[in-house]
Amino acid sequence: KNIGKFNFRIEENSSFFQLFSNTRIRQGQLNIRGKIAKTPLFMPVATRGTVRALTPSQLKEIGFEMILSNTYHLHERPGEEVINKLGGLHKFMNWDGLILTDSGGYQVFSLSNYRRVTDDGVVFRSILDGKEIFFTPEKVLEIQKKLNSDVAIFLDECPEYPCNAKREEESLKRTIKFAERSIKVEKNPGQLFFGVVQGGMNFKLRQECAQALLSLGVDGLAIGGLSIGEEPSLTKEVLLATLEVIPPGKPRYLMGVGSDILEYIKMGIDMFDSVFPTRIARHGSAILYNKGRINISNKRFKEDESPLDRNCDCYTCRNFSRAYLRHLFVCDELLGKTLLSIHNLTVLYKTVRALNS
Amino acid sequence: KNIGKFNFRIEENSSFFQLFSNTRIRQGQLNIRGKIAKTPLFMPVATRGTVRALTPSQLKEIGFEMILSNTYHLHERPGEEVINKLGGLHKFMNWDGLILTDSGGYQVFSLSNYRRVTDDGVVFRSILDGKEIFFTPEKVLEIQKKLNSDVAIFLDECPEYPCNAKREEESLKRTIKFAERSIKVEKNPGQLFFGVVQGGMNFKLRQECAQALLSLGVDGLAIGGLSIGEEPSLTKEVLLATLEVIPPGKPRYLMGVGSDILEYIKMGIDMFDSVFPTRIARHGSAILYNKGRINISNKRFKEDESPLDRNCDCYTCRNFSRAYLRHLFVCDELLGKTLLSIHNLTVLYKTVRALNS
Ligand SMILES: [Zn+2]
Ligand SMILES: [Zn+2]
Repeated sequence: KNIGKFNFRIEENSSFFQLFSNTRIRQGQLNIRGKIAKTPLFMPVATRGTVRALTPSQLKEIGFEMILSNTYHLHERPGEEVINKLGGLHKFMNWDGLILTDSGGYQVFSLSNYRRVTDDGVVFRSILDGKEIFFTPEKVLEIQKKLNSDVAIFLDECPEYPCNAKREEESLKRTIKFAERSIKVEKNPGQLFFGVVQGGMNFKLRQECAQALLSLGVDGLAIGGLSIGEEPSLTKEVLLATLEVIPPGKPRYLMGVGSDILEYIKMGIDMFDSVFPTRIARHGSAILYNKGRINISNKRFKEDESPLDRNCDCYTCRNFSRAYLRHLFVCDELLGKTLLSIHNLTVLYKTVRALNS
Repeated sequence: KNIGKFNFRIEENSSFFQLFSNTRIRQGQLNIRGKIAKTPLFMPVATRGTVRALTPSQLKEIGFEMILSNTYHLHERPGEEVINKLGGLHKFMNWDGLILTDSGGYQVFSLSNYRRVTDDGVVFRSILDGKEIFFTPEKVLEIQKKLNSDVAIFLDECPEYPCNAKREEESLKRTIKFAERSIKVEKNPGQLFFGVVQGGMNFKLRQECAQALLSLGVDGLAIGGLSIGEEPSLTKEVLLATLEVIPPGKPRYLMGVGSDILEYIKMGIDMFDSVFPTRIARHGSAILYNKGRINISNKRFKEDESPLDRNCDCYTCRNFSRAYLRHLFVCDELLGKTLLSIHNLTVLYKTVRALNS
């Protein structure tokens, strides 16, 4: 399995995903609709069609090639019809890189306190106005087609943690049934479809799910239902078991996990997303390279002339002192949120990118 | 008095201010410490050392050469000592253009509900913690010297409107006395001192004040105490009377007035500042070139593909539709505030700049 870096082309390699190395760290690139994103890659989250507090130019300047946006939130506001009329999500938000949209499934399970899942789909209430919304496997793909994202994700069902074996199996079966319906939906030209691997914390079910999705011919595998309360050691075991059955030529995306990324990359994950770096940035928390985090509002930074991190060459660290950033947070100035978001995303970007160069 | 454009050098011209034209519209430039700002000019307001929601790069990209920052707010947080230790306000906020700081006088009169003005100075309470603060003419200049702004403003007393003749005269006298003390303070190298013309709505007092300041040798004249509730027609009459006695070679700065700027420029004003364009931007109000304002949250923009203003080439108008901007405001996304601030400041910048080219 240890094949030399950059000399590597596997049979399963698809037109859109080239894997350059499958050694300790997988290195490759996505090539979708003529746009390239090197893997491993971290996707900032543009929940409502904007990575909060940042312009697309600022994201580009950091180096990002791909972002994630949320189908459920865009369906609520402004609605996929509006975005479609305006030329799709790329044009709407002025992002010319790649966009992955999730299925909305996670929001249904995490945000709505009323929901009913049947084999048909999911009924739940809008978090905005309480109105009933009905999501089916076909519906969430239709929405993503209207958004015209580059990678669309199938509807899945994520079982709670902890849950019993019956529930794990039941939700797994439903996820596979949903996938069987999803694969029949016609893609937009050049668009990719990723299935979601569920199966709770059960290794066998996880492998079964991955194999079922692969046999349906999905373009890539999103791994869901992890980091939802279980011990990190269990997350890793479940993940390793899942990855065992995925051929090297398929991109693997670990959904919504923003910590221990380096470990997961070493285990064989290609794609990540997380709101974590931008969310904590807006609360004044700055990520340091290999040195944990600091809260910039802390009094000890009052006269600190140094940048957030001496090893960082982001716009924020090139131009502003900790003392100034602290001042912005103490005064609740919006610029503070922007500048810390730029820094935190840069740390994530560079840390992951360092593994593909 | 009508001298041809660009052939014009008047005796009173100082080393830092060249007036190219004194015809219908005055055109000139400030040259302070080797940095140039063309006049007429509009200064965005960086209240606490940041033009809210914008990076210094974004301000530069619009074209601004000079901004205003508030002495009182910076004195409160982080304090002038901190900024001085960190190399002065330019370095602290990473702004390499020119900076004018006000005297704090206006904040004392507008924000504090407790104050006592004596011939010594002003006692008032901090808006943050209620602590007593004592500002003297010397003190506010010491603060501005520690900030090391390029143009510092003398402490003045602004009478309420309306007020009686006695009060007008009393506050005028105090403003002049304050100025007499201020002029004795040694400037930082290259720094300029502007005096503030007060005198209520009384033409004679206004002229007397301007002449007194000129005879003290101030570098320029800030005109205060206008647009504080009086009829706009009265504002203009008072202003015209004031300007009559100011020689062409002195720059004239109309403090805190953000509307009718073109009219004031035609009357002979060189410098403006206002929080207006950025404040209304943060509430979703976009200024159109010559066409009033629109509130972008309005439902009629839901599917509007056009930019805020077809005549605008700002970052926002080049890249985003009204529909997207509306979406950002409906979702209360920070990016909306940034993008509308960029647009509104661009409109102000271009409108004023069009008169000097
Ligand atoms: Zn940085
Ligand atoms: Zn514009």
